[in-house]
Amino acid sequence: MPGDDLPERPRIDDGFVEDLLAEPDERGGSDDPVGFVAVGDGADPDLGYLTGFDGPEREYAFVRVADERVLCAPQGYTERARRQFDGRVATESLRAPPGERAAAVLDDALGTRSDADATVLTPATIPHDAAVYLERAGYEPRSTNAVRAARATKAESECGAIRAVQRAGIGAVRHAESILAAADVADGGLRWRDEPLTAERLRREIDADLARRGVRSAGNTVVSAGATTPDGEAADPESAIRRAEPIRIEVAPRGPHGYHGACARTLAVDSDGGWERRAYVAVEAALDAALGEIEPGVDAATVAREADAEVAAFGFDPGGKSARGPLATVHGIGLSARERPFASGAELRPGTVLAVAPSVVDPDEGCVRLGAAVVVTEDGYEKVGDGEPSFAPRRDE
Amino acid sequence: MPGDDLPERPRIDDGFVEDLLAEPDERGGSDDPVGFVAVGDGADPDLGYLTGFDGPEREYAFVRVADERVLCAPQGYTERARRQFDGRVATESLRAPPGERAAAVLDDALGTRSDADATVLTPATIPHDAAVYLERAGYEPRSTNAVRAARATKAESECGAIRAVQRAGIGAVRHAESILAAADVADGGLRWRDEPLTAERLRREIDADLARRGVRSAGNTVVSAGATTPDGEAADPESAIRRAEPIRIEVAPRGPHGYHGACARTLAVDSDGGWERRAYVAVEAALDAALGEIEPGVDAATVAREADAEVAAFGFDPGGKSARGPLATVHGIGLSARERPFASGAELRPGTVLAVAPSVVDPDEGCVRLGAAVVVTEDGYEKVGDGEPSFAPRRDE
Repeated sequence: MPGDDLPERPRIDDGFVEDLLAEPDERGGSDDPVGFVAVGDGADPDLGYLTGFDGPEREYAFVRVADERVLCAPQGYTERARRQFDGRVATESLRAPPGERAAAVLDDALGTRSDADATVLTPATIPHDAAVYLERAGYEPRSTNAVRAARATKAESECGAIRAVQRAGIGAVRHAESILAAADVADGGLRWRDEPLTAERLRREIDADLARRGVRSAGNTVVSAGATTPDGEAADPESAIRRAEPIRIEVAPRGPHGYHGACARTLAVDSDGGWERRAYVAVEAALDAALGEIEPGVDAATVAREADAEVAAFGFDPGGKSARGPLATVHGIGLSARERPFASGAELRPGTVLAVAPSVVDPDEGCVRLGAAVVVTEDGYEKVGDGEPSFAPRRDE
Repeated sequence: MPGDDLPERPRIDDGFVEDLLAEPDERGGSDDPVGFVAVGDGADPDLGYLTGFDGPEREYAFVRVADERVLCAPQGYTERARRQFDGRVATESLRAPPGERAAAVLDDALGTRSDADATVLTPATIPHDAAVYLERAGYEPRSTNAVRAARATKAESECGAIRAVQRAGIGAVRHAESILAAADVADGGLRWRDEPLTAERLRREIDADLARRGVRSAGNTVVSAGATTPDGEAADPESAIRRAEPIRIEVAPRGPHGYHGACARTLAVDSDGGWERRAYVAVEAALDAALGEIEPGVDAATVAREADAEVAAFGFDPGGKSARGPLATVHGIGLSARERPFASGAELRPGTVLAVAPSVVDPDEGCVRLGAAVVVTEDGYEKVGDGEPSFAPRRDE
């Protein structure tokens, strides 16, 4: 079946946490950290990255202390934790809050401490109650962004996971293309299998195809045809798609290994070369211009600026005006569908995986967007996933 | 198309927050709270509940102060926030951390304060950095579980949302049933459409069917056939399902409105009345016994205990030994697939929506489970979603 080749969840080298703990205090003080604690639930990409554990909708803790990796398994999930986590699964006090359990793990590992206020590194967004438990146990939480920073550079195993989910995503968009190719036009509106083909119906078909490939939509599949809101959402997803309307299709599916892909395409049925076709030429040129900028050392903002300038040079209004909005021209992909680097002063490095997707929005005409996913290499980039986009829908290969 | 009738996201009456703020300090002190602040990302069910906003994978803040509801919209999402949020959308300092923005909203609303350490209510799991921003601005965060508590009792609009997604989930399981009914047995293994029918293939077909109905699997669809891990995961999801093996199917899909359903069924192809059939009879009886206990005032733990005792009376080992594990016999459903009440001292009330699903696990034979979703009424309960389960797969209706 399609998608059979989805790889296992990559094992992460978390040596960076060990390095953090080994580094002398930059400020020359004596407060070298004694451990690292993260607390989050199964949806937290940082926790998934650190543990490889597919946790429930409930907070649990990861502790790195004295060369030991410890997962404070959530109640009811110790079996699963043992199967998935490469380290010690702590099962003491299963009903206690994760912050309290993490403090107990630190106490056990460190024994009697001379330091009454030992520093423990944590992500800044650790739940407040967990931070308070650590403080009560005599630890001083100090925030680090090391996990987010580490996630921004992918290991080869992570690139492999992203390639596999990207193949599935491109396949599902190709499936939508074949539906559009097979659709009939009646009174200017599209029909498929004897019913009106609406943006919502096409979106559901795409999500169904993703599911058959073993990945899932994560609720972020977009189909917008014709008039949109100023931020590119379909103004009327329940009406039949019209002939020549730009049909923007975006998927950012999540694989069973947790990693996301990103594919943005625009198609039109029976375009006669009007606004939609001119806008498509603009985003094609913008994508080429942006990709031409990609190499290590370049700022992600430069890539976005290049794309948006090209869109403007064609006389269109770039959609990606906000570096963090739904139409952001550049963002990283990984365990989050959108993650670092954003177009805001982040330098590309070998192993950065980037989605680049310039767009044009005109609330009356529609939204036209074209994207690619790339992994930054030592001397440029490689595309993630293949297949050439087409503006005119093609039938099945 | 199926699932067309999915309702809009329910609007929540957040009067309970206002009540909290109006309540005098229980401890007789002078620290009446001046406001309420929650911070979380688009995946946080508490934030979704409070705001109705479908946010990105990035933290944002909700503030309730001086009769005003304020959403500190995430950068790039102010347009969407205005469409979805019923209150003021604050767009100042879009790049500042949400905790800092929430403190500024409090400052603006409260003007010059006489109280240097005014109490602000927050969920206990507010991100630590947000709590620190509030503290720096002169507020004392005090944790409240009022949001989780409010979520445990559903309004009629929420029950409607759950009914709709439950219909879609039952429909998808029914679809799986019709695939099993159409499958052939060759050399003891199931084949469907000329290929081996594996648990993984059936899972993908279910997820595809959910997608066509406009809901999504949230990664929690389970198909396990035959031998399992001790916690009920398929031991070998890539081998063809065998004749007479118990096939446990579970879906807990999420609707576009954010609410989840819960449907657990077990089927077997050509069962000859062996272990799988006897275990099925046990979980049928256990489900009946558990449902018979449901009425306001009863503890959720009593319902679970009744079910597990019935399973044991049939001579089987109940799967739901942990009140929080993957085979928990009783849990609430709502904006989380599993939420309060759990089988741990929580009293049922009119408006509680409960999944009840007793199970039997034998790692060699398999896992057999049967569930129902109910809403607790003034004098008992109503089933959510209809359709009678069957142990022998039926063809399409």
